[in-house]
Amino acid sequence: MTEKIESLVPGYIKTLKPYEPGKPVEEVERELGIRKCVKMASNENPLGPSPKAIKAVRDAAKKMHFYPEGDCFYLRQRAIKAFGVKSEELIFGNGSNEIIELLMRCLLRTGDNIVVSQHAFLVYKLVAQGLGAETMEAPAKNLGHDLGAMAGLINERTKLIFVANPNNPTGTYCNLDDLTKFLDVSRGVPVVMDEAYYEYAEAKDYPQTLPLLKKYPNIFILRTFSKVYGLAGLRVGYGIGNPALVQYLNRLRQPFNVNLLAQHAALSALDDKAHMKKSLAVNRAGKKFLYAQLKKNGLEFQPTEANFILVKTGEGRKVFNALLKLGVVVRPMDVYGLPDHIRVTVDVEKNNLLFLNALLKTLNER
Amino acid sequence: MTEKIESLVPGYIKTLKPYEPGKPVEEVERELGIRKCVKMASNENPLGPSPKAIKAVRDAAKKMHFYPEGDCFYLRQRAIKAFGVKSEELIFGNGSNEIIELLMRCLLRTGDNIVVSQHAFLVYKLVAQGLGAETMEAPAKNLGHDLGAMAGLINERTKLIFVANPNNPTGTYCNLDDLTKFLDVSRGVPVVMDEAYYEYAEAKDYPQTLPLLKKYPNIFILRTFSKVYGLAGLRVGYGIGNPALVQYLNRLRQPFNVNLLAQHAALSALDDKAHMKKSLAVNRAGKKFLYAQLKKNGLEFQPTEANFILVKTGEGRKVFNALLKLGVVVRPMDVYGLPDHIRVTVDVEKNNLLFLNALLKTLNER
Repeated sequence: MTEKIESLVPGYIKTLKPYEPGKPVEEVERELGIRKCVKMASNENPLGPSPKAIKAVRDAAKKMHFYPEGDCFYLRQRAIKAFGVKSEELIFGNGSNEIIELLMRCLLRTGDNIVVSQHAFLVYKLVAQGLGAETMEAPAKNLGHDLGAMAGLINERTKLIFVANPNNPTGTYCNLDDLTKFLDVSRGVPVVMDEAYYEYAEAKDYPQTLPLLKKYPNIFILRTFSKVYGLAGLRVGYGIGNPALVQYLNRLRQPFNVNLLAQHAALSALDDKAHMKKSLAVNRAGKKFLYAQLKKNGLEFQPTEANFILVKTGEGRKVFNALLKLGVVVRPMDVYGLPDHIRVTVDVEKNNLLFLNALLKTLNER
Repeated sequence: MTEKIESLVPGYIKTLKPYEPGKPVEEVERELGIRKCVKMASNENPLGPSPKAIKAVRDAAKKMHFYPEGDCFYLRQRAIKAFGVKSEELIFGNGSNEIIELLMRCLLRTGDNIVVSQHAFLVYKLVAQGLGAETMEAPAKNLGHDLGAMAGLINERTKLIFVANPNNPTGTYCNLDDLTKFLDVSRGVPVVMDEAYYEYAEAKDYPQTLPLLKKYPNIFILRTFSKVYGLAGLRVGYGIGNPALVQYLNRLRQPFNVNLLAQHAALSALDDKAHMKKSLAVNRAGKKFLYAQLKKNGLEFQPTEANFILVKTGEGRKVFNALLKLGVVVRPMDVYGLPDHIRVTVDVEKNNLLFLNALLKTLNER
């Protein structure tokens, strides 16, 4: 049977290397036999979920034998108002990852390609490979997207372009000017603006893409409830874009792709302005603290528009392992082509300090 | 832009007709302006979720800002013991629908085909179409799968065969003898045994497929926590089969496909033997009651191995609409090629009676 399977599965699926996620606290504690681990590896909200979302989940738990609303009816109504979009422009997914997958399954055939930047989110490349499509990667400029270089890669087989803004894992961003110049030469190819970290962006020239949709209908915006909304465990992301495309994605998706508790929690999280405000304030304070301390200790880092910082430590994988043993989980960046970096999530003061001390200890011992 | 999209999307995606799910109670009440609707449309467990699962979800809600374990670590350990399988034979999905999708994305290319039975679960056909693959449908025999006819359809482009056992929406089943005869001539093509209703089957010759895996390694078993386990809202299903295939499905799936609360709830539901026992008893009693009453009133129905009954009412869509107005949601079966039937979920005594009275009222008024 194994031979038969091997003969049926195409090479591009066989050679897929699964994405390496941040290690869960439980896994680290299990494997290393340590306790009280701190996870600063997956850009989760250090304040936890909105208390309103927790209450919504606890209330809805008794109804979880029912299938969810297939089109996220109530969440959708709430989101339409909150974001100022039309229902037919909006799609929800099992995390924004699912929407990335749906977009590619809808638009890419074997031999087609996507255009991305070096050091961009790895999932783009993996999903494309799973479809037998190619990834054209433009070299980064100062760790960020070089939109000019990306535009130069577009050809007649390019069916999707991904601009992660702010970009994970570098924390860099494209400004409004550069973006509109890029959109002007994007030849109508759908441009996915992956804005998973949208709410954290503080730069004055960070582009608001919703108002651009009218002039550039090839923009497709991706956002998520996994980051500042604190609902990574529930898997709910959303896409906003051209109704024709949204309609086809809806045909392709499974009828109950977003689970019932996720819908309740996301709706309540949207209503919790206080939790959002506090989460953003904690992130601002944490960035300020970490910037100052890293600078003071002569460590190079990339200023960030998100809730994580890319730090140049040298030998990132080794530093990652050493930090693990000290109970601090960060992310090594070799898989992103950055072997000398680690990525750390901005956390509450206590944990930021814990990370910093562990990092200094590790670097001093080398 | 719409023109550009239209030019990029293949015809087989454009013509996809989305699956029509059972109407949620809230939707019916919203649309018809009625209250206290009873949903007997989606084969959900009428007793609700296991109390242990509810507790697990309420406890875990405060942790839902964390990403879930990507490989369902704790649920997996528990499931391995409960089912007597190896870890490398087991995969979890966002509902078993996701695993159906992964199987097809892994094994089917444009122009390939799947073999199914008439009146089988519609999702098979829809997922195949979304990949540009064909569905070869063998005519049913007495509403059930005609495995001989299905075997006759297998050709060199057949990459997957689906045997729904018991079948939704007919409630029919294939017995052990017929199944092994079929497997003997299945030419090594992967045969998906879709056993979403496995736990409900009572027939003595209903086949246990796990022990068959050794002799027939092309079997791939699909089961779910959406039915007797009462967790449809959380989306968690699982597949058991050849480790080579499981490994490729794992490469294709998104890293966090099963949400955190679903993992906690499923694990606890597995431990709740009392809830399972009670759920099966309620179903047995409900079947007995409905069989007797339908017979008494001269209504034709298909004996079922699941938790729903296919009833021949004539003009199923009209009967469905009339029942809706009386506050009872069932499913019309025209989309399954059964325009004279409705499908009703076996419920608790009170609701079974409610359905029966509404049905008799409806039929008498015609």
